[in-house]
Amino acid sequence: MKIYDWPTGPYPARVRIALAEKNLRSRVEFVTVDLYKGEHKEPEFLAKNYSGTLPVLELDDGTLIGECTAITEYLDALDGAPVLTGRTPREKGVIHMMSKRAELELLDAISVYFHHATPGLGPHVEIYQNAEWGFRQRDKALRGMQYFDRVLKAQPFVAGEFFSMADITVIGGLIFAGLLKVAVPAECDSLLAWYARMQQRPSVRNRIAMSEPTAASA
Amino acid sequence: MKIYDWPTGPYPARVRIALAEKNLRSRVEFVTVDLYKGEHKEPEFLAKNYSGTLPVLELDDGTLIGECTAITEYLDALDGAPVLTGRTPREKGVIHMMSKRAELELLDAISVYFHHATPGLGPHVEIYQNAEWGFRQRDKALRGMQYFDRVLKAQPFVAGEFFSMADITVIGGLIFAGLLKVAVPAECDSLLAWYARMQQRPSVRNRIAMSEPTAASA
Repeated sequence: MKIYDWPTGPYPARVRIALAEKNLRSRVEFVTVDLYKGEHKEPEFLAKNYSGTLPVLELDDGTLIGECTAITEYLDALDGAPVLTGRTPREKGVIHMMSKRAELELLDAISVYFHHATPGLGPHVEIYQNAEWGFRQRDKALRGMQYFDRVLKAQPFVAGEFFSMADITVIGGLIFAGLLKVAVPAECDSLLAWYARMQQRPSVRNRIAMSEPTAASA
Repeated sequence: MKIYDWPTGPYPARVRIALAEKNLRSRVEFVTVDLYKGEHKEPEFLAKNYSGTLPVLELDDGTLIGECTAITEYLDALDGAPVLTGRTPREKGVIHMMSKRAELELLDAISVYFHHATPGLGPHVEIYQNAEWGFRQRDKALRGMQYFDRVLKAQPFVAGEFFSMADITVIGGLIFAGLLKVAVPAECDSLLAWYARMQQRPSVRNRIAMSEPTAASA
């Protein structure tokens, strides 16, 4: 399999974490798509993913799978033992809900802030910006952090009693927020304690190094 | 189970279609949440779904599941025979990708247009509008229609050879576009032919009547 991504990107991080959690990193070749050159908006890449976003998984038969949730569904089902996307109907429902909520209320909101209310990837990539919308989305993300803090006061993981795709999505949101210096409010002590725990997971800690040639033998 | 929704809503339609496809309508009680009164933004409902969106599924044990994709995952897994969300890893990946793409490029874009660049649900519900963003999203949705037309020139259903959640999401997009008189471009003949076929499916045709008391015995 090939994964087209950008090593430090918050969305690519979601798939890198899922890969590591599923012990699949040795089966994947990484191909870097240079976000700051806008390679993800060029025709060659748009033919792989109409939405022009990273990451994209390419299977050995040529099938292309974009969107982090879809890639995670694929990877998690490969061994017939889903641990990230849920085993029972109830687990599947709650994990998908919480992961989508983490996109809507945190990760995607931070992304819109980046692309619309900061220089983003630079003027040749950010050809349209709506700063007012971007700042609204930043504020939404800050409220989202308060929401996930409340969730994590009541349970150890975002979707309940175990680590799942929903945790990975919130991690993606906090990685993106960190890159942009959007701080988690200090009163969100449960969210911060959870994030400190998450950063101890090898899948999270080693996500960038996993595609470096020197790490390939690991 | 209870479903909180609005009978004619495009997002509620997605879950109603999934329910009918899975022959589960008799196990569900519908509770109407009045969008035009803004009931979905009031504290009582926000306690059920932080994001303030319909529909929400409430299980008999009190578990609340929001987000159409998550509800569909739950319903499709109930009988152990998923037909809407995929059976193999590859099917799961492709269906989730195409359904998410249908949200991003069509349904959600039309929704933003409605809430930001038209009167939407009225001034007491639409307390913030960004019309420029709304019109950009309408144009994105029109490009999305052209994209799905190309997809449907090459294959009979949105995610390949059979009906899936991805078709349901595009149907939701075209329902919403139809309500707003945003016409599918006439040259999108494959998309229009597919939509005509979809409207023949009982699950799509009968989606609004399914919650009416007189239809309860059906």
